[in-house]
Amino acid sequence: MIELGANRYGKAAIRLVRVHRDPDGHRLRDLTVAVALEGDFAAAHTDGDNSLVVATDTMKNTAYAFAKDHLDGALEDYGRALAEHFLEFEQVDRATVNIRGHQWRAIEVGGSPAPDAFVRGGEGTRVATVSADRGGTTVEAGVEDLVVMKTTRSAFSGFPRDRYTTLAETDDRLMATKLTAIWRYGAPDLDFDDTFLAVRTTLLEVLADHDSPSVQTSIWIMAKAILERHDEVEEVRMVLPNLHHWQVDLAPFGLTNDGEVYVATTEPHGLIEATVRRGDG
Amino acid sequence: MIELGANRYGKAAIRLVRVHRDPDGHRLRDLTVAVALEGDFAAAHTDGDNSLVVATDTMKNTAYAFAKDHLDGALEDYGRALAEHFLEFEQVDRATVNIRGHQWRAIEVGGSPAPDAFVRGGEGTRVATVSADRGGTTVEAGVEDLVVMKTTRSAFSGFPRDRYTTLAETDDRLMATKLTAIWRYGAPDLDFDDTFLAVRTTLLEVLADHDSPSVQTSIWIMAKAILERHDEVEEVRMVLPNLHHWQVDLAPFGLTNDGEVYVATTEPHGLIEATVRRGDG
Amino acid sequence: MIELGANRYGKAAIRLVRVHRDPDGHRLRDLTVAVALEGDFAAAHTDGDNSLVVATDTMKNTAYAFAKDHLDGALEDYGRALAEHFLEFEQVDRATVNIRGHQWRAIEVGGSPAPDAFVRGGEGTRVATVSADRGGTTVEAGVEDLVVMKTTRSAFSGFPRDRYTTLAETDDRLMATKLTAIWRYGAPDLDFDDTFLAVRTTLLEVLADHDSPSVQTSIWIMAKAILERHDEVEEVRMVLPNLHHWQVDLAPFGLTNDGEVYVATTEPHGLIEATVRRGDG
Amino acid sequence: MIELGANRYGKAAIRLVRVHRDPDGHRLRDLTVAVALEGDFAAAHTDGDNSLVVATDTMKNTAYAFAKDHLDGALEDYGRALAEHFLEFEQVDRATVNIRGHQWRAIEVGGSPAPDAFVRGGEGTRVATVSADRGGTTVEAGVEDLVVMKTTRSAFSGFPRDRYTTLAETDDRLMATKLTAIWRYGAPDLDFDDTFLAVRTTLLEVLADHDSPSVQTSIWIMAKAILERHDEVEEVRMVLPNLHHWQVDLAPFGLTNDGEVYVATTEPHGLIEATVRRGDG
Repeated sequence: MIELGANRYGKAAIRLVRVHRDPDGHRLRDLTVAVALEGDFAAAHTDGDNSLVVATDTMKNTAYAFAKDHLDGALEDYGRALAEHFLEFEQVDRATVNIRGHQWRAIEVGGSPAPDAFVRGGEGTRVATVSADRGGTTVEAGVEDLVVMKTTRSAFSGFPRDRYTTLAETDDRLMATKLTAIWRYGAPDLDFDDTFLAVRTTLLEVLADHDSPSVQTSIWIMAKAILERHDEVEEVRMVLPNLHHWQVDLAPFGLTNDGEVYVATTEPHGLIEATVRRGDG
Repeated sequence: MIELGANRYGKAAIRLVRVHRDPDGHRLRDLTVAVALEGDFAAAHTDGDNSLVVATDTMKNTAYAFAKDHLDGALEDYGRALAEHFLEFEQVDRATVNIRGHQWRAIEVGGSPAPDAFVRGGEGTRVATVSADRGGTTVEAGVEDLVVMKTTRSAFSGFPRDRYTTLAETDDRLMATKLTAIWRYGAPDLDFDDTFLAVRTTLLEVLADHDSPSVQTSIWIMAKAILERHDEVEEVRMVLPNLHHWQVDLAPFGLTNDGEVYVATTEPHGLIEATVRRGDG
Repeated sequence: MIELGANRYGKAAIRLVRVHRDPDGHRLRDLTVAVALEGDFAAAHTDGDNSLVVATDTMKNTAYAFAKDHLDGALEDYGRALAEHFLEFEQVDRATVNIRGHQWRAIEVGGSPAPDAFVRGGEGTRVATVSADRGGTTVEAGVEDLVVMKTTRSAFSGFPRDRYTTLAETDDRLMATKLTAIWRYGAPDLDFDDTFLAVRTTLLEVLADHDSPSVQTSIWIMAKAILERHDEVEEVRMVLPNLHHWQVDLAPFGLTNDGEVYVATTEPHGLIEATVRRGDG
Repeated sequence: MIELGANRYGKAAIRLVRVHRDPDGHRLRDLTVAVALEGDFAAAHTDGDNSLVVATDTMKNTAYAFAKDHLDGALEDYGRALAEHFLEFEQVDRATVNIRGHQWRAIEVGGSPAPDAFVRGGEGTRVATVSADRGGTTVEAGVEDLVVMKTTRSAFSGFPRDRYTTLAETDDRLMATKLTAIWRYGAPDLDFDDTFLAVRTTLLEVLADHDSPSVQTSIWIMAKAILERHDEVEEVRMVLPNLHHWQVDLAPFGLTNDGEVYVATTEPHGLIEATVRRGDG
């Protein structure tokens, strides 16, 4: 006997720009949105019955339509409006909306921000994921592709050595990563913009100002600080590739290299992931 | 109280080429390998204690060393040797090895394959994931990035219409996707190469030769056929982006367009995922 | 005094699929097209005068419209029709059409090609560039992203050594590249499909069957063979990154490595470019 | 008779990080470097004679070695030192060094920049190309991948209409581009950092504060301003893709859309290129 297991479907890579033409200057939102639904879709698979299948084209249309009236505030509020809208379909058990917010800032002209011209940039991408089911709505926020480097205060030693171990122990290495940090909020109706900025600041400050005996410990220290300083956060998930930088041997050229010149690499890279959360005590 | 949740770490993007210099012609293996370990790594996070942390550099070394003697057969056999090796560390509860195999074929010279020159190509990428824990070893195989198109025999109609629905029903559209199909085997010691080719053939043949009322149903039909024809397979997971092709309106130019000229798009795209498996009956 | 120098404009990344629904099976063309115009566009720059500026949106429309009636044959013929069409605008001095042809083959079902289902794949991408001006039309064809490897018969020695040279000489290395080869035809009205295949075969056969003392010499040998064997070709341009594969030192693990296990790298890479052509004798 | 035409070779994608460990805080340079040589390399092609072929591995080593002592100042100064070094080889007629500088800033902790922790970011990538031959050294600087948007003050009208033209004229559109601007300096020994920042500021300010009747005119206006305000610059080359943003038709959903909600697209895109320079007057 063959049966359908877990399934979901939706629309991804919806590219959307929203301009608020305020009198004192335009505001610009640039998003990539994905919608996914789970629910009563067995017949769509096994019987070719589309009567309950909300078209993914409709999801796209809805994302654009909601951008008109529901995108004045935080990404998370827009995501929540969308997710809870799709939950109005009876056949939907869970609607998940993922949003990546691309950063723009007003170009400065003579020291003042232009009202209608922008440059894209920023450090990492802000992300928000809102998931709504009959039991309530869950909001996650975070950053992806945040590339950071510690040029000292990073070590890696005391690890086991076997037949295949050649890595030297080090008490001072360069640590670089392109980190993803996603945190889950305890409530669906915070001031999401302020909270995001505050958590991101904690993340960067603690990253900068701690001694790292390993990437694993760094994750723990950063995630723990977020939980300690931000009551709104229930859980933090972090994924840190370890983008190795190897000190170049300049001795053949008659030069020393005291932590000055490095080869930056991406292949291979370490990949360290952990979740840190509030426990039951 | 703050506690460590799920965590794992490893080495990713290990790029490895293995040449077997057989007398009658070289054989070429080109892999991207990732290793991940789960286990007793709490102290590494919370105490900066690396005494149980197998270095990811050691994982890389091991992948290269095992390529010398364990890579004559299928990807899955190499992955199994690696995964079971890492399980020999007491602190490791689960070792997962993911392998992507890049396809090369011998260049033909005057109708015969050259013994020592190759061209990379192929249709999709073969993948294998071997996961070993104290309870045994699980092997998954599959393809990623397999781009396929049905130029007819694909429809989408009968879906619900709401305020935001503008999509027309169609009984004949072009369906294109870049599919991922991963199947789990019931045993860790099959003839993995033959089985892979047989399952892949089923996948492509059924894809080509069925009428599709929706991407959802196509997944069901293909996955069901794999399970029916291949007893070795216990479960199939498929992810199908729906890469929309829109028929161009040529009427303004005085031309008709009866399913002839299309705009190929990638943004936005549908994204349909499902697992199909043997049930308890 | 400030003046306008060289300028051109056009539409790029026009994604186009053309289905020929022949009774005995569909044929599929999948192209990425770019159009660029040069000519009397100074006023568009310096005076904001668009009266001669063929809209790039019109170029896109034209590419789709011409796909209806002019894309039954070779890419080059379609490109020529488009380029010569744009030259009909008086203000245009030169129209250049670049086409990348993405490869698909019919999926086999029970040993026969399906009439209406295809899989994308192939080895490298076929490209064609047609440039038309008042003096005539020039056609270039070629391949991009053709990834090839020679597992022996490649050396690199006898190079000069200075203070910064550490590379060992080798008489047997692995050579890999992702090559671009573009050849210019002497006439605009060949059988472009047959000629393309013949030249591509020469390229691959000579690549496979020569001894390489350097990438530079390999380019010369391959390009010279194309010119010697194909009278239609006037000039060959080749760009070969040298994708280094480093033999892994397995000695620390008690293993030998006689050209068996390599690290594949892409950063940094050599980059060797040359043009070879018929001379005046 | 078959002959060698234009040729060059070098090393690309040299990834290099340089840390200056100053007492009051580290400084970080993160570069991607490419070196290319032209000269007396005919025998390397036609005779397999490597006696004049500076190994690309040596170029890489030299780039790292020079990072030790020649990378305290501007990218352009480092590039010049490298280019002029390679010109010391008699067989080299021209050495070109291209550098992309990846931007990092110190992370702020409690309002002050951390001495040893950095985040990567920025708007566009700074590039520098230094080309040295027996006649002297030429320096170009610029930016790549600078993504900018004007939310008003951009029009496109008055263009010719033919059978294939469907684009409506508009006096107010959203203009977005990912621009490349490269400017050539008149001398090889400027204060390159200050000049770069000044030119970049001009570029952004003029971009923000002009009315655009077309992308072509915008290029002219920006490039002309750079030449007028910066005597050090002799020529400006600009490449502007026109990344179309289409206003979504919200009428089917009972909503208006007065320049509020747009679809962001990348395929197809316009592509407008021009050079503007000081003329002979």
